[in-house]
Amino acid sequence: MVVLCGGVGAARFLEGVVRVVDAQSLTAIVNVGDDAEFHGLHVSPDIDTILYTLAGLVDPDQGWGVRGDTHLVQTELARLGRDTWFQLGDRDLATHIHRTALLHEGVPPTEVTARLARSLGVRARILPASDERQATMVRTDRGWLPFQEYFVHRRQQDDVREVRFDGAATPAPGVIDAIGDARVILVAPSNPIVSIGPILALAGVRAALARTQAPVVAISPIVGGEALKGPAAAMLASLGHEVSPAGVARLYADFLDVMVLDERDAALAPRIESAGPRAVVAPAIMRDLAAKEQLARIAIDAAGAPAVA
Amino acid sequence: MVVLCGGVGAARFLEGVVRVVDAQSLTAIVNVGDDAEFHGLHVSPDIDTILYTLAGLVDPDQGWGVRGDTHLVQTELARLGRDTWFQLGDRDLATHIHRTALLHEGVPPTEVTARLARSLGVRARILPASDERQATMVRTDRGWLPFQEYFVHRRQQDDVREVRFDGAATPAPGVIDAIGDARVILVAPSNPIVSIGPILALAGVRAALARTQAPVVAISPIVGGEALKGPAAAMLASLGHEVSPAGVARLYADFLDVMVLDERDAALAPRIESAGPRAVVAPAIMRDLAAKEQLARIAIDAAGAPAVA
Repeated sequence: MVVLCGGVGAARFLEGVVRVVDAQSLTAIVNVGDDAEFHGLHVSPDIDTILYTLAGLVDPDQGWGVRGDTHLVQTELARLGRDTWFQLGDRDLATHIHRTALLHEGVPPTEVTARLARSLGVRARILPASDERQATMVRTDRGWLPFQEYFVHRRQQDDVREVRFDGAATPAPGVIDAIGDARVILVAPSNPIVSIGPILALAGVRAALARTQAPVVAISPIVGGEALKGPAAAMLASLGHEVSPAGVARLYADFLDVMVLDERDAALAPRIESAGPRAVVAPAIMRDLAAKEQLARIAIDAAGAPAVA
Repeated sequence: MVVLCGGVGAARFLEGVVRVVDAQSLTAIVNVGDDAEFHGLHVSPDIDTILYTLAGLVDPDQGWGVRGDTHLVQTELARLGRDTWFQLGDRDLATHIHRTALLHEGVPPTEVTARLARSLGVRARILPASDERQATMVRTDRGWLPFQEYFVHRRQQDDVREVRFDGAATPAPGVIDAIGDARVILVAPSNPIVSIGPILALAGVRAALARTQAPVVAISPIVGGEALKGPAAAMLASLGHEVSPAGVARLYADFLDVMVLDERDAALAPRIESAGPRAVVAPAIMRDLAAKEQLARIAIDAAGAPAVA
């Protein structure tokens, strides 16, 4: 099984997935367009969120970072005059220090991530979407901003007029094969523009998704016109997309077989199906572990049914 | 005033010096032969020890590191499988992260150190001996070891058969001028081989010390046949030097005007003086701040008297 992933929403969904299928049969292909350097350290927010979540270390309130983490180093970095708007906890910093040291030694990101996963006891295969640097850039009324500048520093206050992905063009080794070999492909309830979008922008990924015989099932990150998490709703709107599971399904139209949408949006099911994909209505808000598991089970069951497209 | 410095012994002596002279008139030229990379971070142990000491942050028991520091990041780095024999506290790590980030941006070590000093409120000028990488290597019965491997990892258990300095050949901008412009030059009670030695090995430093009209006053790091701190005594012995202030004076013979030695070694004064330098006998063990100040005052007063050489 392959799951295309962003950060927090995907991590929560994966918590459910690993209760339904053996984690060792799971490959998470994870967005690296949010990656950034802070204090010379390479930070991979989506990968770390997924690692920490599957390792049982994540801060449950934030959905990212390490539970109970302290910020001693960051306090000191601020005292030394550094910008510290991007929160880096002490235990979290160890991950970034280790990753950066390995990258400087020439270890590719896929191998760095595999080692981190092993050290943290994560059994699923966590695959960065690319081994090259990929930088999601968003155009706002203040001009083009690096993603974290928009997302964390300016707290998503700017309307996004355009999105582009700089750098990486090639998916990481294993990505295309994982898609081709998968019996089920899930698209996590992540931001379709800046979480799933960078993965889809890599050469051959969309084509591999369109080509595979395996059913591709997306879980809508939009429920009742709002995003489960983050700026997806505002971003879809300002980019001229419909802020609904139907709008998301359209962005995935060339490869999507099933769209899982929340009960609140049940009325949209016929319209989604008229465009091609089957629509599966389910409780899509992951309030607790049971809800995550239920959503994962519904998505996987939906894949088992004959695909419409 | 210029002081040639190693780490802990020099830092303790400088605490006394800044009680006797205005810190702003002081340039500490500090050994960088101990510098090393850990986890991809550039660590300058002697510079940091001096910065933390003059900033009032140092751990008073160890003589290095930050008082009350924690080791959360290091614990996590160990969990990720990294070697953590070199202790790095959390607050201390911020210094290394900041330094490394600036070095990667192309800021030279002299400027990095000046910024750190400013951020920490240190008014003395702290000058790395070189802006180039210099690596002190020691030959033991296990072969050539990088300094920290010998010093920290193997706890100085090996006899040192030979010492060499790899890399840097050129002193940092300002070093030769500081020596030439100084009215008094002090050599801190640091290890003459691996703390002062790397500074003296840089092109033009010994010549500048020999040439200057200013008195050069060394404080013996050896008292009663033992080192005030660290492996200086064993190292002098295994390298065939006399383990005494007279032995140290001989290593500085080409530029030394005054040797300050402890009362315990008073009997050596005539022998030192017969070789050239004046010998000043004083309580040379820095038990408390008063003792540090007294030793600094004696060294500076000794410089005021007409030099013998």
